Amino acid sequence: MSSAKQRAYQLWTVPKDMLPFQLESGEKLHELEVAYHTFGSLNEARSNAVLVLHAFSGDSNAMKWWYTMVGPGKPIDTDKYFVICSNVLGGCSGTTGPASINPQTNKPYGFSFPIPSIRDMVRVQALLLDHLNVKKLIAAIGGSMGGMQALEWAKTFPDRLKSSIVIASTTRLSPQNIGFHVVGRNAIMSDPNWNGGDYHEHGGPKKGLSIARMLGHITFLSEEAMYEKFGRKVRKHGRNSPLSFGEEHEVESYLWHQGSKFVERFDAATYLLLTKTMDYFDFSDGYNSLEEAFAASSCDFLIISFTSDWLFPTEQSRDMYRALLRAKKSVTFSEIETNKGHDSFLLPNPEMEDLVRAYLEARR
Amino acid sequence: MSSAKQRAYQLWTVPKDMLPFQLESGEKLHELEVAYHTFGSLNEARSNAVLVLHAFSGDSNAMKWWYTMVGPGKPIDTDKYFVICSNVLGGCSGTTGPASINPQTNKPYGFSFPIPSIRDMVRVQALLLDHLNVKKLIAAIGGSMGGMQALEWAKTFPDRLKSSIVIASTTRLSPQNIGFHVVGRNAIMSDPNWNGGDYHEHGGPKKGLSIARMLGHITFLSEEAMYEKFGRKVRKHGRNSPLSFGEEHEVESYLWHQGSKFVERFDAATYLLLTKTMDYFDFSDGYNSLEEAFAASSCDFLIISFTSDWLFPTEQSRDMYRALLRAKKSVTFSEIETNKGHDSFLLPNPEMEDLVRAYLEARR
Repeated sequence: MSSAKQRAYQLWTVPKDMLPFQLESGEKLHELEVAYHTFGSLNEARSNAVLVLHAFSGDSNAMKWWYTMVGPGKPIDTDKYFVICSNVLGGCSGTTGPASINPQTNKPYGFSFPIPSIRDMVRVQALLLDHLNVKKLIAAIGGSMGGMQALEWAKTFPDRLKSSIVIASTTRLSPQNIGFHVVGRNAIMSDPNWNGGDYHEHGGPKKGLSIARMLGHITFLSEEAMYEKFGRKVRKHGRNSPLSFGEEHEVESYLWHQGSKFVERFDAATYLLLTKTMDYFDFSDGYNSLEEAFAASSCDFLIISFTSDWLFPTEQSRDMYRALLRAKKSVTFSEIETNKGHDSFLLPNPEMEDLVRAYLEARR
Repeated sequence: MSSAKQRAYQLWTVPKDMLPFQLESGEKLHELEVAYHTFGSLNEARSNAVLVLHAFSGDSNAMKWWYTMVGPGKPIDTDKYFVICSNVLGGCSGTTGPASINPQTNKPYGFSFPIPSIRDMVRVQALLLDHLNVKKLIAAIGGSMGGMQALEWAKTFPDRLKSSIVIASTTRLSPQNIGFHVVGRNAIMSDPNWNGGDYHEHGGPKKGLSIARMLGHITFLSEEAMYEKFGRKVRKHGRNSPLSFGEEHEVESYLWHQGSKFVERFDAATYLLLTKTMDYFDFSDGYNSLEEAFAASSCDFLIISFTSDWLFPTEQSRDMYRALLRAKKSVTFSEIETNKGHDSFLLPNPEMEDLVRAYLEARR
């Protein structure tokens, strides 16, 4: 098998007779392409598929960004499972999004791209599964925004999955979460290169996007993880004064570096759209309770949270778990002790790895 | 007594023979003005003075921003005490700072203004006390950055105060605190109207400053306080689509409003400088321990923290308290149960009010 890094995504162009694709907002897409990776092989019974759902800044190359979880011999074992991962609708890694050409104007959508809902993303994934001849999944699994999609799968396509694995996620954002998104969006839209979202043909709001990402990184890390990573170490350079802007704490250099790297691979309009997607996500919207929102689901649920995650605190996963119990669903909840914060789901974690491995194995 | 709102500050021009004022960084100020308010009267024995120290965005008008604590009949009772509050060095509410004219260039300092240390601020306050003929304070009291100054008073001028009252503060910032400051500073410096800090004669980086403030506000509030204030209420306006940028969560409108208000009264260069002042503050720097850093202090200490303050968590106040105990100082520590977050020190809080009232009364 070639290394994950070298694999490019495959692109599926949704056939004309399946279009337009109408979003929950009522807006329509008249062209739709889906970037995806598959790893491993679909067995003859077509019964070994696992759908991996990426988080906000992920892409379809799950073996790269989730190297601890996806690959030969890994918990989501590509020697056993046919693993599918696609870039979300509105994304910027191959699937139709703000940088795509709007066939009605022959120019990039930019900021006029409709805000997808989590359900819209999941509906596109279901079309892709049809295309790949996969009727039923062993599991839909994802962390953070990927977990929201795993939840939505259980609600929208209850017959198409045996299990939903929801990691470091939530049924809806807190006002604090939304507040951080507001700051990030304003940083992007205040950048003069934002140009009202019309920038895809001439650069983009890199400074604003970089600031939004720096803020994101703080929220992904626990305070303890930040102490471990940086302490209060000061990196000296420039002016030799003991109190000057030529001196930086290590955390400053780190965030700056993270911000700068990010703008090379991510699209600012996607940042705006997908943060709004998450802000609007509310799993129990239209129901009287969370319990009721789960009523139509028939799959098993595995809920995993991390003690030091302050972005989507473990209490929110516990609420999910309790609602699923009240709804008499089959549910396993594991709160994993770690000091790494929200980031934990992307990092090596033997407890999470063992749990997911066993959970999938039991449902093969 | 006229209302607090109507009182303008007094301005003290530091006499030439006391200048230049040399900062810890080695840089020198050749002109220095201090904006201050006094409330109440100094008694004949000159023994009833209380110094109030403002936080990051405060000013000298303590009766306005700390209306719950300062005034006739209030805990810091202006019928009993001679209350002094001055705008900090580097501030933007009357005391010499970035918007002041640099006598060497006849233009505003802008970003070339030196970064003051907490000790520099306190040394300017001590000069003001000399000018006001106050030798010894009943207390130096402040919250947040004001608490850092109260701590520094106890170290730098141990003979000039009977007590140091440190509320919702810390002996040093965490990497997470510094990270939030980094994001705010970058938002300001990325605004094209920042112009390298040379903007005092033609507008300023209002968008960047507003973004920095929005972020600050999130960190001042607890998650629970945000739920209470906003829930997940959506404010609809503009486009009628269920998922659009014409719709906002209430938290978005609130933060936007806070940011917009702030830029009318605050200076961007002061924002940069004073966040660096706090980043560099480390009370035990140069000592082997926090305990040792307190060794030379001879005053009583009252440490107050709030359970839901996640900016300067209560654990940091507990560390202060323990170090003071080990240093065999007279210390009272009160962790106050509240769900209002860091903001608590500025809000009505009977427990804090009663405590400070009694503590000052016992030291009259």
